[in-house]
Amino acid sequence: MNIHDLDTPALLIDVNVLDRNLRKMAQYCNDHRLALRPHIKTHKMPEIARLQLQQGAAGITVAKLGEAEVMADAGIEDILIVYPLWGEKKWARLVDLASRVRVTVAVDSLAVAAGISQAAKTAGTEIGIRAEFDTGFRRCGWPIAASSMDEIQKIIALPGLRWDGILVYPGHIMGNQTIREQDIEREDETMDALFELLGSASIPYPVVSGGNTPAAFASHRFHGLTEIRPGTYVFNDRNTVDAESAEFANCALAVLVTVVSTSVSQRAIIDSGSKTLSADPLLSGDRLGYGYVLGHPEFKLEDLSEEHGHLTIPSGSKINIGDRLRVIPNHACTCINLHDRVFVVEGEHVVDEWKVAARGKVA
Amino acid sequence: MNIHDLDTPALLIDVNVLDRNLRKMAQYCNDHRLALRPHIKTHKMPEIARLQLQQGAAGITVAKLGEAEVMADAGIEDILIVYPLWGEKKWARLVDLASRVRVTVAVDSLAVAAGISQAAKTAGTEIGIRAEFDTGFRRCGWPIAASSMDEIQKIIALPGLRWDGILVYPGHIMGNQTIREQDIEREDETMDALFELLGSASIPYPVVSGGNTPAAFASHRFHGLTEIRPGTYVFNDRNTVDAESAEFANCALAVLVTVVSTSVSQRAIIDSGSKTLSADPLLSGDRLGYGYVLGHPEFKLEDLSEEHGHLTIPSGSKINIGDRLRVIPNHACTCINLHDRVFVVEGEHVVDEWKVAARGKVA
Repeated sequence: MNIHDLDTPALLIDVNVLDRNLRKMAQYCNDHRLALRPHIKTHKMPEIARLQLQQGAAGITVAKLGEAEVMADAGIEDILIVYPLWGEKKWARLVDLASRVRVTVAVDSLAVAAGISQAAKTAGTEIGIRAEFDTGFRRCGWPIAASSMDEIQKIIALPGLRWDGILVYPGHIMGNQTIREQDIEREDETMDALFELLGSASIPYPVVSGGNTPAAFASHRFHGLTEIRPGTYVFNDRNTVDAESAEFANCALAVLVTVVSTSVSQRAIIDSGSKTLSADPLLSGDRLGYGYVLGHPEFKLEDLSEEHGHLTIPSGSKINIGDRLRVIPNHACTCINLHDRVFVVEGEHVVDEWKVAARGKVA
Repeated sequence: MNIHDLDTPALLIDVNVLDRNLRKMAQYCNDHRLALRPHIKTHKMPEIARLQLQQGAAGITVAKLGEAEVMADAGIEDILIVYPLWGEKKWARLVDLASRVRVTVAVDSLAVAAGISQAAKTAGTEIGIRAEFDTGFRRCGWPIAASSMDEIQKIIALPGLRWDGILVYPGHIMGNQTIREQDIEREDETMDALFELLGSASIPYPVVSGGNTPAAFASHRFHGLTEIRPGTYVFNDRNTVDAESAEFANCALAVLVTVVSTSVSQRAIIDSGSKTLSADPLLSGDRLGYGYVLGHPEFKLEDLSEEHGHLTIPSGSKINIGDRLRVIPNHACTCINLHDRVFVVEGEHVVDEWKVAARGKVA
């Protein structure tokens, strides 16, 4: 099948760009002796998780138990869940999962760790555990303070848990390359302080897990990292380009759209809105717009309705109903999450269709 | 089952509030002799569409053919598609749909109308048609100008189409009650100009369709309306409350969430982020925040990650891991679209579970 035979809107993955993105990260991690444990929340597809593992990934990362279950069902055998799992229902699912595949979880409270420990002990299983620290993103993670070490020592002593180290998420390291330079220096000071605290408390940390997509290729410069968990690098998106971590030519994901209305002056309406692209804003710069129209920087995707994309068109631009465009979304992860399937393309050919198997797994 | 037995995050619909919202709008339309043709893009559930029809709705409105197909499969027999449908594939689906149920479409170009006409003629069927005009939202719709009348006369003359009138979408009428007063006056002047143009061109318009949720209960004051198509009124959301068109007590939809982390000072993390609530911004006021925490106006849902909601907590507030909260989303329509199912509740009792059957129907 040819791309021209697809109805729109349709999500396209350029398999050659995808493959190049995957290989580049795998090679980088190999060169720098970093374990790669990609976050599959970006793609939610076992097909891509398998490609990542084939190219040397140590395992995968997920945020939700539902994502982990889908991946385990598809034969993925080593899963890190970076999320505070709370409640009897989730703990029961977790120990069930641990009976099938190797599972590690990140925790940032004694309460969550104690719940997991109890469930693991009762089920007679063992679950890997890491402590998450907050290095500045202010989301999850213990503060880097002596008081945190006391709690972590209590966790290490809990039954049913297999301690293997620490975890950070530097979500605050974004911006552009210049800003990141300073951020990385600050992060290193923070991590050095953490290592000193852990050392003083005699807490071992064979694994130090971190990393995100914007700073992925600078991971070897972060002090002490042994593993990174980038997600978006598989596709890249407008945010990644804006963060100077990729070019549009490295974007493997695009939404194929059709111009459906040109009735209003200086406007063209495309058949993709917030239910197709997601309304996630651009994270840096002027933060305006909801996607980049490939080959047409003069068209601005200024606003979204649920099913309409509002393009502003400079006067004199030639655009007609029925024209097809490719839009690079601001945020690949939330865009894919809106779709049931993607079309895998090589040039103009549709070579495969993949199901977004872990879409909708919010719990 | 009790609400406490549900795992989170979970979408809850309070069936009594829903019923009250549906009855209030049905009564209003009945009192003012307005046809009610609710837009089902909000709920995407045949169960709710059927309730709307049972209470007197004239039919339903959809944006996407996929939504129309799901509703037709569920036995809904009168469907208006307010979307410029372009391309052979869509026209083939449209005539197929028209062989099963009564279908009307809105158009804002001769190109789209000609494609539909050709497909209908070939299939030996007839499709209802309305012309959409732009009254200020600058999305779809012909300009209110004499030149538009020439195109519409050509459309009326096309075979395979059943002309029944005109359609507007006053998406620009939002804000709060005070702002809307002025907007409604301006809208009336615009509509009067349109009626004059249509009259001069001898174009009949038995149907004049308009309306949105914020201005729904002022619809009788808009000149000439015979039908309204509100969507969000079934649930209401933070945007509706902010537009002074409902109170939080009228919000039928809430996301049941759990606090999963309190490790970072002045923060609490809930298990719902942009993949559960949607990142749609607040449309008026300060435009800050991503939802309203019922009973806790002091908690601000300041930021979202994909699976984390970042609450800021005033110092001294009591909040613990495992606490459950209910969040009213900014935008009900995009929130529901992220979920496969909803739980229908009466007080603390879960009385039903509905599938979001038309979710993901982007084409």
